[in-house]
Amino acid sequence: MNPIQGSDKPEIILTGDRATGPLHLGHYVGSLKQRVTLQKVHEQTILVADMQGLTDNAHNPKKVSSNILNVVADYLAVGIDPSKTTICLQSQLPALAELTMYYSNLVTISRLERNPTVKSEIASKGFERSIPAGFLTYPISQAADITAFNASLVPVGGDQLPMLEQTNEIVRKVNSLAGRVVLRECKPLLSDAPRLPSTDGKNKMSKSMGNAINLGASEKEIRTAVKSMYTDPNHLRVEDPGEVAGNVVFTYLDAFHTDKAYVSRLKERYRHGGLGDGTTKKILETCLQDMIRPIRDRRNVFLSDKAQLIDVLVQGSQASREKTAEVLSNIKEIFGLNILCARSI
Amino acid sequence: MNPIQGSDKPEIILTGDRATGPLHLGHYVGSLKQRVTLQKVHEQTILVADMQGLTDNAHNPKKVSSNILNVVADYLAVGIDPSKTTICLQSQLPALAELTMYYSNLVTISRLERNPTVKSEIASKGFERSIPAGFLTYPISQAADITAFNASLVPVGGDQLPMLEQTNEIVRKVNSLAGRVVLRECKPLLSDAPRLPSTDGKNKMSKSMGNAINLGASEKEIRTAVKSMYTDPNHLRVEDPGEVAGNVVFTYLDAFHTDKAYVSRLKERYRHGGLGDGTTKKILETCLQDMIRPIRDRRNVFLSDKAQLIDVLVQGSQASREKTAEVLSNIKEIFGLNILCARSI
Repeated sequence: MNPIQGSDKPEIILTGDRATGPLHLGHYVGSLKQRVTLQKVHEQTILVADMQGLTDNAHNPKKVSSNILNVVADYLAVGIDPSKTTICLQSQLPALAELTMYYSNLVTISRLERNPTVKSEIASKGFERSIPAGFLTYPISQAADITAFNASLVPVGGDQLPMLEQTNEIVRKVNSLAGRVVLRECKPLLSDAPRLPSTDGKNKMSKSMGNAINLGASEKEIRTAVKSMYTDPNHLRVEDPGEVAGNVVFTYLDAFHTDKAYVSRLKERYRHGGLGDGTTKKILETCLQDMIRPIRDRRNVFLSDKAQLIDVLVQGSQASREKTAEVLSNIKEIFGLNILCARSI
Repeated sequence: MNPIQGSDKPEIILTGDRATGPLHLGHYVGSLKQRVTLQKVHEQTILVADMQGLTDNAHNPKKVSSNILNVVADYLAVGIDPSKTTICLQSQLPALAELTMYYSNLVTISRLERNPTVKSEIASKGFERSIPAGFLTYPISQAADITAFNASLVPVGGDQLPMLEQTNEIVRKVNSLAGRVVLRECKPLLSDAPRLPSTDGKNKMSKSMGNAINLGASEKEIRTAVKSMYTDPNHLRVEDPGEVAGNVVFTYLDAFHTDKAYVSRLKERYRHGGLGDGTTKKILETCLQDMIRPIRDRRNVFLSDKAQLIDVLVQGSQASREKTAEVLSNIKEIFGLNILCARSI
């Protein structure tokens, strides 16, 4: 079965992004393109994770709040269609917080501290012991998100697999407590696109590092980013043979240029010598300008009508409120806390 | 100012109990009697903490669910009046879980691990590193409870003071983030009643230890409990001088007998020799039977009409939902997450 191309039975897909910055080409290659395809055959929900975004930005909440509508505009601009994909806002779904509370009683602190993804994030953020409680426990909150939507398939990068393991552990604990299957385990959908490197070839793409090309990047920003791109540092003269592996310009050409044969010929010339970085960068720039221009234009149109973007979130959140409340009610039933449910309060 | 006797300005009081067992004489002396007085002059809310009860009972949730209505019946039986005191159920107030999520981003794991109350609880429960995340973080959830009701005064035992410190730290962080006073700090109301010892004089009272006298104890249970009570182990014959300090029978007589002069004379006789433990126990038993009988009777009447008890919780939770939702909205405003609030969803 290939979930991307569809199967007999549509999957329930939950995916999402922390709203901590506008989306960039890494998101486009790694997940957004896939979502556009998935929405055609599956039931897809995208969660704009504003609360998760706060777990390490509580002292700078504007970083989250100012990016919520940017992220929604990014979705619409790349072709995610709110009539096919439910787009909702995490902070609008109280059931997610309540589920997180219940699940928190089923997961130990030491289990959370063993999570390799969180471990490496803690190290990279320099948190050490001053890690916020909300950050250490965010895998529980993710489990709440996934189970609240009864998701069967979760698109992830390989580094996110421990999150799904954590979710499925909680699912098994809940089902064992209930003595029946109340929640279902989810499967990962690993993207086959390799992770796009940052323009400097060194770090993870991030806005603060200035090494990412956003979907809303201006013509000038694209030009500057491509010009500063990391190539082969030993390729000093045009006539020198150059290295293609690790050369960010070629990685981007592989990812974005539609004529694969042409890129293949360029690589050969580069390896043999006689192709300058200025030329390859010019080719890449044209390619990226052509690809990003219509996305940027659509994005700007969407951003010029904030009420419409809010409406997308309102509609999606309303639909998701009902779904997630139902799962919460099942969980409260297991814990015997539906005592008042016969009476509407 | 003496908050018990009233002051110019009524306080907003939040108090509550984990619903993990029926309430006993320790609760009666330590808090329930005080609440009956406080409700006359202050705005008092009692939170039945079912979700907090689960933080260390998730694998035995019946311990919580089966006790919710017992606890409400205990309240009503001792004279807590739902027309004066709001009685509500924690799991019915989603704002509490949401506030907990937001506050979790403002508290570090190491701060939680330094909490002396939680530290000693972890040790006494033998959790060590397999402590559930929900248990380590329950002081954050308590801060959510207290601030959600805008409580100014929180009745606590001395061992609970670190909880209020934790709450006030969160209050200050929130206010500093907001740049204005959004939440108010709370003050502790320390009970002047000394902690009532367990009947065996050794441990904290608990149902599982069989060393507590519940408010619903039968005549026979009271008799058995008093008979087995710890006295002076060196007071072997009636004519021997006996020790009053640490003698649980006398501690209970001090706490419950209305004729203080009579108890004083009994103590003198006991100290000089000539008063047997059988006699003091008989006196205490009569006193406790007389005191508990009407409470037990009222309790049984309340428990025979579960619909009425549920109604008390429904009414109280409905009123509290609105209040706590308002505080949540203020907190979401600070984090910039009221983006959809103009639109009702």
